[in-house]
Amino acid sequence: MLCLKVASDPAWVEEARRDLDAILVDHAHCEMKAASNALSLATRPSNEFALVRALTDLAREELDHFQRVIDFLERRGLRLGTPPVDAYASDLRRAVSALPHDAKISSLVDRLLVAALIEARSCERFKLLLPLLEAQEDGELFVFYKELFVAEARHYQVLVDLAISATGGDAPAVHARLELVAEREAAIVRALAAGDARGSIHG
Amino acid sequence: MLCLKVASDPAWVEEARRDLDAILVDHAHCEMKAASNALSLATRPSNEFALVRALTDLAREELDHFQRVIDFLERRGLRLGTPPVDAYASDLRRAVSALPHDAKISSLVDRLLVAALIEARSCERFKLLLPLLEAQEDGELFVFYKELFVAEARHYQVLVDLAISATGGDAPAVHARLELVAEREAAIVRALAAGDARGSIHG
Repeated sequence: MLCLKVASDPAWVEEARRDLDAILVDHAHCEMKAASNALSLATRPSNEFALVRALTDLAREELDHFQRVIDFLERRGLRLGTPPVDAYASDLRRAVSALPHDAKISSLVDRLLVAALIEARSCERFKLLLPLLEAQEDGELFVFYKELFVAEARHYQVLVDLAISATGGDAPAVHARLELVAEREAAIVRALAAGDARGSIHG
Repeated sequence: MLCLKVASDPAWVEEARRDLDAILVDHAHCEMKAASNALSLATRPSNEFALVRALTDLAREELDHFQRVIDFLERRGLRLGTPPVDAYASDLRRAVSALPHDAKISSLVDRLLVAALIEARSCERFKLLLPLLEAQEDGELFVFYKELFVAEARHYQVLVDLAISATGGDAPAVHARLELVAEREAAIVRALAAGDARGSIHG
């Protein structure tokens, strides 16, 4: 699915079924982190206005999703709490910063690819959650998660396209790098599944 | 004007007249910093959904302004460049963190008041810029800056109201603190004017 090299552990789905509220809370934090991350990248390619605009558009959409998750939390009497430690994202960033240097790949490109992988993993997990919500007849959450599933897939593609754009159009170099990033991501998902099956929507 | 205790130095206006393009570029960075700052505050009062929502609404509006400034830059052939060092904002944060401890004032309240002062100063400076743009017959920028002038005044008020809300409604405590923050802000504006009259739209 998308560029992912390993499926989420079935134990993750089992844990999610037991606590769908925790998944919702966690997803609020994921959207906020995605928005902040897009903003932190937005002024880096400072004179490429198309990139600046695309990243701020992405942040705006993540903020819209965040606010809609907050509405669900409030209606369901859940608390947001402080953002949990995100071992998946920090391990992934660390693993990617340790990849071999490639003259065609700037740190911005690497950060765009990390963000793309995070979106791809979210997307895969929403797909796993959809049948659970259907079985529980949670119609409004089913419709919302289906929309998020589609959005995460689109964000993955937008971020990969922006990475290509940030190299000046070198799609082969970006796809080769994406392979490496996806391998690291798979290793991290496997390691986290072995340690703690629960984790976040994406990790 | 608003809570400000000192007017911007007339030399600032003189410098601005000489380089209105630099003011526009600088303002793009100001909007982005305001958006990032609002997001960094948004999940702090994590279980006060009204505050979380108000801060993300504010971030969304700052991002909208950022994108509109970017449109101006592109149409006018200007470059965004990397964000300049913001001595005004960092001095203000430092000065406020050194204020005497007040049991009613959390670090969130202080950060909201710092953000409120920054908006107030922007607002004051837009007011000073408006006659310059009118004189130069730059109609589209005049209309946009007038809108920003109104928005900054509103943001100031929103942030002060959020600070009151974050204390559980203790308006007298917040207004007393705002006085202290405004005194520090005035001292910083005076010091920066003595050193370098140019600076940013707000500093």
